[in-house]
Amino acid sequence: MADLIEEFNAYRTQMNERILDADNKVLKRIFNLDTNAYADTSDEGGLSVQVKELLGLSTSMVLRCDDCIRYHLGKCYEVGINKKQIFEAFAIANLVGGTIVIPHLRRAVEYWEALEAKGENA
Amino acid sequence: MADLIEEFNAYRTQMNERILDADNKVLKRIFNLDTNAYADTSDEGGLSVQVKELLGLSTSMVLRCDDCIRYHLGKCYEVGINKKQIFEAFAIANLVGGTIVIPHLRRAVEYWEALEAKGENA
Amino acid sequence: MADLIEEFNAYRTQMNERILDADNKVLKRIFNLDTNAYADTSDEGGLSVQVKELLGLSTSMVLRCDDCIRYHLGKCYEVGINKKQIFEAFAIANLVGGTIVIPHLRRAVEYWEALEAKGENA
Amino acid sequence: MADLIEEFNAYRTQMNERILDADNKVLKRIFNLDTNAYADTSDEGGLSVQVKELLGLSTSMVLRCDDCIRYHLGKCYEVGINKKQIFEAFAIANLVGGTIVIPHLRRAVEYWEALEAKGENA
Amino acid sequence: MADLIEEFNAYRTQMNERILDADNKVLKRIFNLDTNAYADTSDEGGLSVQVKELLGLSTSMVLRCDDCIRYHLGKCYEVGINKKQIFEAFAIANLVGGTIVIPHLRRAVEYWEALEAKGENA
Amino acid sequence: MADLIEEFNAYRTQMNERILDADNKVLKRIFNLDTNAYADTSDEGGLSVQVKELLGLSTSMVLRCDDCIRYHLGKCYEVGINKKQIFEAFAIANLVGGTIVIPHLRRAVEYWEALEAKGENA
Repeated sequence: MADLIEEFNAYRTQMNERILDADNKVLKRIFNLDTNAYADTSDEGGLSVQVKELLGLSTSMVLRCDDCIRYHLGKCYEVGINKKQIFEAFAIANLVGGTIVIPHLRRAVEYWEALEAKGENA
Repeated sequence: MADLIEEFNAYRTQMNERILDADNKVLKRIFNLDTNAYADTSDEGGLSVQVKELLGLSTSMVLRCDDCIRYHLGKCYEVGINKKQIFEAFAIANLVGGTIVIPHLRRAVEYWEALEAKGENA
Repeated sequence: MADLIEEFNAYRTQMNERILDADNKVLKRIFNLDTNAYADTSDEGGLSVQVKELLGLSTSMVLRCDDCIRYHLGKCYEVGINKKQIFEAFAIANLVGGTIVIPHLRRAVEYWEALEAKGENA
Repeated sequence: MADLIEEFNAYRTQMNERILDADNKVLKRIFNLDTNAYADTSDEGGLSVQVKELLGLSTSMVLRCDDCIRYHLGKCYEVGINKKQIFEAFAIANLVGGTIVIPHLRRAVEYWEALEAKGENA
Repeated sequence: MADLIEEFNAYRTQMNERILDADNKVLKRIFNLDTNAYADTSDEGGLSVQVKELLGLSTSMVLRCDDCIRYHLGKCYEVGINKKQIFEAFAIANLVGGTIVIPHLRRAVEYWEALEAKGENA
Repeated sequence: MADLIEEFNAYRTQMNERILDADNKVLKRIFNLDTNAYADTSDEGGLSVQVKELLGLSTSMVLRCDDCIRYHLGKCYEVGINKKQIFEAFAIANLVGGTIVIPHLRRAVEYWEALEAKGENA
């Protein structure tokens, strides 16, 4: 199961490097914006990183992007979102986005379980 | 400005009634699910209503549904989300969903300002 | 209420003419394909016009195109689809496409009622 | 070719169970709604299961969800939709949804042929 | 007809200012990126502003964003794209995106004609 | 790397034949329209094949269709679009369509590099 995570991360890292190597300024800035948008600002009255990652997860889910879902699931797991909370975000995404989201939900649950299995073995 | 809010709510309420009058079981249940999905479960280890409404808002924004954005902006305002937090949710939605979301952002900002103006006059 | 129907049809007819006037071969052929795709082929073992119009309606609804919904509602009404059937198609579209479809459902119900009102007065 | 069908069904069944195991009320209800929405109501003046499955198929196709298309193709085959009718539904979905749907059409045709091959060998 | 253009521009300018006033760094940078992405780089072996605006127009059209279409139509007109070229871009967008794009095509043609009418009177 | 290209083309050709074999008139005409829409009309004041293929590429990218992206990348390579131009089209598509497009960008860059590698070895 952990292979699912490693394969995803390896391809993602490798191709991101090749994209940045092309030295297109607009693409580089879009990549940089990600870091800013998901930063914790809860001590300035903004949103916590936990909430922001849940926003990233649920928007990725309604837009039905498996890789984006995987990325934000990994981040959610890292920042301590629990399983009940993840499934509540899944529920809102499936309600808003419809049953068309269910196949992505299946793959998301598989990935989440891989993250939990890896965490327990760490 | 407050008219924007009242007109939206009046049409929404009126048409929802006519939809439910048609007595289609599936549509009725979809409407009921909404109440459940956005309920606060933070005292059971789940997500707060504030977080859930932000999920509703940001998924509506990337899916570019003005009426859904308005509905969740109203709810976000009611449950005490502040302007800085709303704009951070807007920023994530615009980053994830692209510049195609900007026209919806314009209308969302107009609606948020109407909610603030109405709140100050209340 | 009948104005809703007339305004929609008038703008649609007027602009379709201006599109065809531009004499772009690809656009003209796309317009022609519509006639073919929705033709009744039930006597050759294919689908009836009723089923085809319901397919046009429900695909328009999940893709959230108000004008397309209106067009196919008009056709559905013409070919004798009843209200119960229309709402069952609405229900499938809202289940598949999610609550994001509801604002379009509201406007669809308003248009359907306008068609019924006009029919009764005819 | 039949492996295509078995693999799809096996993964679908396995992951649906794991989703339901998580015991999220909203997700469970969304799953239940599916059964209701596609039930035959033609003896009460509603739509037949054949028409409803065609609606499920064509909405899945314009929303470009391969797994949803496969699921509804399986159901369509079960309830006796013939090849000519399936291709007419494909044609409407490709016309409404555009050439962007064609890659999904390719995979749909492959799956349909697998269903036919399996049926002939049964 | 020119009012269509002025109203669109006035609302766009006014709301963009209010968005930027909120001082959200991510939103500000997304707005800035637009200027970079559409700059002419044909003298460095890149794409001309004409081609880039056509890319902006056609991507806006398949994503069915009326305001984005209007914005890029205005830019296309400014940089000298002719009517035949505009309709060829429309044709590709309608073919790729399907008949669901047609209502947006109607409004796009109306806006293009307003731009031409205004240009002739200038 | 070249296998990526051959596998894609082989499956595409094989399934397109099976689709056309089904003899559905609407599908056949949609396939035919493609040839027309992308033809070079620059000598009649229209758009060059280079620009049209870039429109096909960028609309495919914002609609997030990997196979469509691959097809148009192959065509772009054939008609002489250079790497800088391809990345500028990628940049516009990622800006307009948002970070949800990035996973498709990764696969597009991989495919583009395969085309370049194959070209160098030819």
